[in-house]
Amino acid sequence: MDYKIIETKERVLADNDKEAEETRARMQKSGTLLVNLMGSPGAGKTSVLLRIIEALGKKYRIGVMEADVDSDVDAKTVSATGAKVIQLHTGGLCHMDADMTARGLAALDTEGLDIVFLENVGNLVCPAEFEVGADLRIMILSVPEGDDKPLKYPLMFTVSDVMLVNKTDTAPIFDFDFNRACAAARTRNPDIVCIPLSAKTGEGFEPLIGLLKAKIKERRRGQ
Amino acid sequence: MDYKIIETKERVLADNDKEAEETRARMQKSGTLLVNLMGSPGAGKTSVLLRIIEALGKKYRIGVMEADVDSDVDAKTVSATGAKVIQLHTGGLCHMDADMTARGLAALDTEGLDIVFLENVGNLVCPAEFEVGADLRIMILSVPEGDDKPLKYPLMFTVSDVMLVNKTDTAPIFDFDFNRACAAARTRNPDIVCIPLSAKTGEGFEPLIGLLKAKIKERRRGQ
Repeated sequence: MDYKIIETKERVLADNDKEAEETRARMQKSGTLLVNLMGSPGAGKTSVLLRIIEALGKKYRIGVMEADVDSDVDAKTVSATGAKVIQLHTGGLCHMDADMTARGLAALDTEGLDIVFLENVGNLVCPAEFEVGADLRIMILSVPEGDDKPLKYPLMFTVSDVMLVNKTDTAPIFDFDFNRACAAARTRNPDIVCIPLSAKTGEGFEPLIGLLKAKIKERRRGQ
Repeated sequence: MDYKIIETKERVLADNDKEAEETRARMQKSGTLLVNLMGSPGAGKTSVLLRIIEALGKKYRIGVMEADVDSDVDAKTVSATGAKVIQLHTGGLCHMDADMTARGLAALDTEGLDIVFLENVGNLVCPAEFEVGADLRIMILSVPEGDDKPLKYPLMFTVSDVMLVNKTDTAPIFDFDFNRACAAARTRNPDIVCIPLSAKTGEGFEPLIGLLKAKIKERRRGQ
C-alpha cells in the first residue's frame, strides 16, 4: 500500500511540474510576473502584500490571488487597495498546486497586469512541495515564530528565492537573531536573499520593492 | 486521475482511523493519557510543553514525542527537563498519522508513563486531518498570528478540545481580540475550551494544568 501511495504522489508531482512550466511560459509570453508568496499562518503575508501594493500600485497594474482553506478575510482586505483580487478556496488542501493556480489565473484574467501575487495557504511545509509556475518565490518568516525555523522546515527555505523576516518591530520582546536565521536558511539555499522588514511600521521595504521593480522590468524586456 | 487520488486518500484515512482507535484502546488499557499538541510553526508548542512539564513533572511521569520534518532542536530542549523524549522525523510529511504515532509510542516505550505528549509538526492544516489516537487534542494559537485564524483554518478548531491562546504578554503590541478568536473557534466547535496564557511569563497556566490533572486521574480510574 505504501508503494502505491508514493507512486500516486510521484505521478501527481510530475504532472504538476509540467503544468507549472506551461503556466510559467504563458506568463512570460504575456509579460506578467507571477510571485508565489508563502509563510506560516500569521507570518504577515497579507500585511506585506498591502505594503507592496502601496509602493507599486501607482506605477504597475497588480493582481492578487488569495488562497485559503476557507473564508474571504484576506480578499476583502486586499480588494480595498484597488488591486484586482480573487479568493481561491483549496477545498481543505494545505497548498496550491499548478492546476489550481492556472485556473485561478484564468479566473483572475491577467491580461494587462504587470505582476500577480499568489498568496498561498499559510503553511511552512506543503506549499514548498508544489511548483505553481511562479517566477519568484518569496517566503515570510516572522520574528515571533523564532529563528530556528529553517532547521525544522528545510524545504521551504530551499525552494524560496527570498526570505523576508517580518515583524522586526517586535524584535525587542522576542529572542530572534536575524543573522542566525539567515545563516540557517543559507545552509539550505546559499542564494536566498534575506530581507528584514516590518509591515506594521513600513521599515525595510526598499530592497524588496527594488527587487520587484527590477524583476517586472526584466519580464517586460523579455517579452 | 482525480478520482484515483481521492480514492487513495479515503482508503488511507479509513485505515488511519482504525489504527488510531487501536492506539487509543492500548493507551486506555495501560493507563497512559495521550495528548496531541498542535499549532503553527512558532506558536509556542515547545515552550508551553516546558511549562506543563515544570508543573506536572514532580508528580507524574511524562513522555514526549517531538515530531518534525527535520532537526532535533525541540527534542534537545525538552530532554533537558528530565522528561522521557524521542524525536520523530516525518520524512517531509506535514503531519503525524496514526501509524507513525503508534511506532513512535513503541519506540518511546510508554510503560509506567502517566501522560505522553505528541508535539505535532507545526501546521494548522494537515495535523487536523489525521487522528492519531489521542485522548485530548490541544491546539495553540499565538497572539502574533492574529485572531482571524479560526475562520481560515476551520478544521483545526473543529477537531481540537482545547485552544490555548499563547503569548498573551505580547497583546499590547498586537491587535488580537481573545473573545473574537474564541467566538470564531466556537462557531466550528461549540465545546472548545479557550485558555489565554503566556509560556514566556508563565501566567494563565492554572486552568490548563487543572484540566490535565483531571484527565490523568480520570484515565487512571478508568484503567
